[in-house]
Amino acid sequence: MTEAPSSPARRSVRVDLGDRSYDILIGPGLIAAAGAEISSRMKGRRVAVITDEHVAPIYLEPFMRSLAGGGIQAVSLVLPAGEKTKSFPHLMDVCDSVLGARIERNDAVVALGGGVIGDLTGFAAGIVRRGSRFIQVPTSLLAQVDSSVGGKTGINSRHGKNLIGVFHQPDLVLADTDVLDTLSPREFAAGYAEVAKYGLIDKPEFFAWLEKNWRDIFAGGDARIEAIATSCQAKADVVAADERENGLRALLNLGHTFGHALEAATEYDSRRLVHGEGVSIGMVLAHQFSARMNLASPDDARRVEAHLGEVGLPISMAQIPGSLPPAETLMDAIAQDKKVKSGKLTFILTRGIGQSFVADDVPPSEVLAFLKDKYPK
Amino acid sequence: MTEAPSSPARRSVRVDLGDRSYDILIGPGLIAAAGAEISSRMKGRRVAVITDEHVAPIYLEPFMRSLAGGGIQAVSLVLPAGEKTKSFPHLMDVCDSVLGARIERNDAVVALGGGVIGDLTGFAAGIVRRGSRFIQVPTSLLAQVDSSVGGKTGINSRHGKNLIGVFHQPDLVLADTDVLDTLSPREFAAGYAEVAKYGLIDKPEFFAWLEKNWRDIFAGGDARIEAIATSCQAKADVVAADERENGLRALLNLGHTFGHALEAATEYDSRRLVHGEGVSIGMVLAHQFSARMNLASPDDARRVEAHLGEVGLPISMAQIPGSLPPAETLMDAIAQDKKVKSGKLTFILTRGIGQSFVADDVPPSEVLAFLKDKYPK
Repeated sequence: MTEAPSSPARRSVRVDLGDRSYDILIGPGLIAAAGAEISSRMKGRRVAVITDEHVAPIYLEPFMRSLAGGGIQAVSLVLPAGEKTKSFPHLMDVCDSVLGARIERNDAVVALGGGVIGDLTGFAAGIVRRGSRFIQVPTSLLAQVDSSVGGKTGINSRHGKNLIGVFHQPDLVLADTDVLDTLSPREFAAGYAEVAKYGLIDKPEFFAWLEKNWRDIFAGGDARIEAIATSCQAKADVVAADERENGLRALLNLGHTFGHALEAATEYDSRRLVHGEGVSIGMVLAHQFSARMNLASPDDARRVEAHLGEVGLPISMAQIPGSLPPAETLMDAIAQDKKVKSGKLTFILTRGIGQSFVADDVPPSEVLAFLKDKYPK
Repeated sequence: MTEAPSSPARRSVRVDLGDRSYDILIGPGLIAAAGAEISSRMKGRRVAVITDEHVAPIYLEPFMRSLAGGGIQAVSLVLPAGEKTKSFPHLMDVCDSVLGARIERNDAVVALGGGVIGDLTGFAAGIVRRGSRFIQVPTSLLAQVDSSVGGKTGINSRHGKNLIGVFHQPDLVLADTDVLDTLSPREFAAGYAEVAKYGLIDKPEFFAWLEKNWRDIFAGGDARIEAIATSCQAKADVVAADERENGLRALLNLGHTFGHALEAATEYDSRRLVHGEGVSIGMVLAHQFSARMNLASPDDARRVEAHLGEVGLPISMAQIPGSLPPAETLMDAIAQDKKVKSGKLTFILTRGIGQSFVADDVPPSEVLAFLKDKYPK
């Protein structure tokens, strides 16, 4: 975590969506290069930059300077950091700020931050003037490998996470890998959970590579850019095949149904649980539940547990600080999750490492029994 | 206005949008038939009905009874009536109500009301779970011939009208022509402005037919269903050709740039000006401005003025009760309107009755001079 990436090589991943296709640039120095990159791709000359209190002190000034260098006029809005910012009042703030800046159709709205800022800002960009141009500058590993790619945007509701939003593709993603050096080990690990997810979905060889190379990824070596590019490409492929989550794209939710329920159960309190940690526990639970349903070998669940535990991620509900509500409450959150069809639960289950599949007829009673079994005593 | 439509004939108009195609049913008795019509078209068995304080006392109970008769479970939410309901706080109310009712992907959100309820509810349907099924039951003439068709949804911002929203097509539109008998003459006339608009855009023979038949339309005769079906078909054709307003669809904004600015100038106060009245004055101004720019004959502007005046619509800014802000303020609202590209104004102008076109290089100085000229002294 202390060294800058040793390779200056910049990678580019194309998300192929017809007239909504876009590039993800991955590499060091992209915040300093943002003005030039944006300027060469955009007709308009104005942007509104949305960021948060954690990111602003470190990156806002260099980013604004880079924009000015590219001849782009910019206004900025700094929001509170944290999951609770994904709310209607802040959505209104962002829309108001963008409209007040007179961002026109050829101009753009920019998210400079992690997943929360990206999801909120992308939603605002998707609804201002019924759709405005949008640029993602993700500053967390989680956002670089997951939330900034694919066009899902949204806010939370008291009924659950991400229940309100739109599909709105960015026009460009600039993933500056230098920024990852300022993440805490806990934040980095949380993002790594999504990297591991791509291996668990359908890339067993990538998961095996991660088991061998994770130390180099955490340390900022060459393997880091490689892991991010592989993750973005994996997500880009799924999104290109199923933009609006009618089928295949649901696989990206591996670990997320349990994960979202745990986030709701901890009231989105990042001191107790952050998204990637919920996904880590959720992926372990999904593998354990698959084993319990005789779909996969318990050895695979143990291998997932071992690797995620080794990198410092939580792998069981017992590791969440504080007490959890009753299993029934968790079950309720799962049933209200958006991946529900006519009362039956849709889960991503697995037949083994890299063999995930969409199961849309999971009996709620089995899930509840399993949860009670796994519940912290 | 006192007789029910004498013809029981029901008309159906198809909006052709590939896998998002849908039917508009037009005719008497459709509220009573809603349960059967919805039930036969929808897999889910739950709906959330959003309506307002004016509509609820008359139509909510019969509508809910009709749904129950069709085997559909429904919850309802009654909002304040009026343009100010198109706001973030009410959007949040609607989303919360829909999520609280556990509306799933095969279920639907229903707008029972005029344009305000339709725009707000459609927006909520477009963002809950990133897009839910949506049924329009328009109860005003304006909503039946305009806002319920075409998928534009949204709310207002302090920066202008409809600046925040999404494109979200309904799955079905039920236009019960019986409900028009309960509209005030002022409301009916306001909706009629949009009917006349379709003639003025590109159907000179329809405009001539309206000049002859408007009394029968206002009285609820056969011409009424005919006029509504022709209007819906006209809008459906434009929307099918240009769903997301990249070109042709802009023609539907004839009279709307001036109209929206006047609505903003009167602070969306329906006692002073309702949308259709703004459009009426706006269409007259668009024809007068076209004549001033030597694009059309002043005779055409006078013909438009004469017909809209005859049916009881306002045709000049002087008819708006109370004082208007300075012309410069109006101009500012026009420049902030969403139909602006790189500082030049986009207006719908005309070469004569039924010969409208998109002009995207209108000099703001000409518009301001024209407005000052027409301003109430």
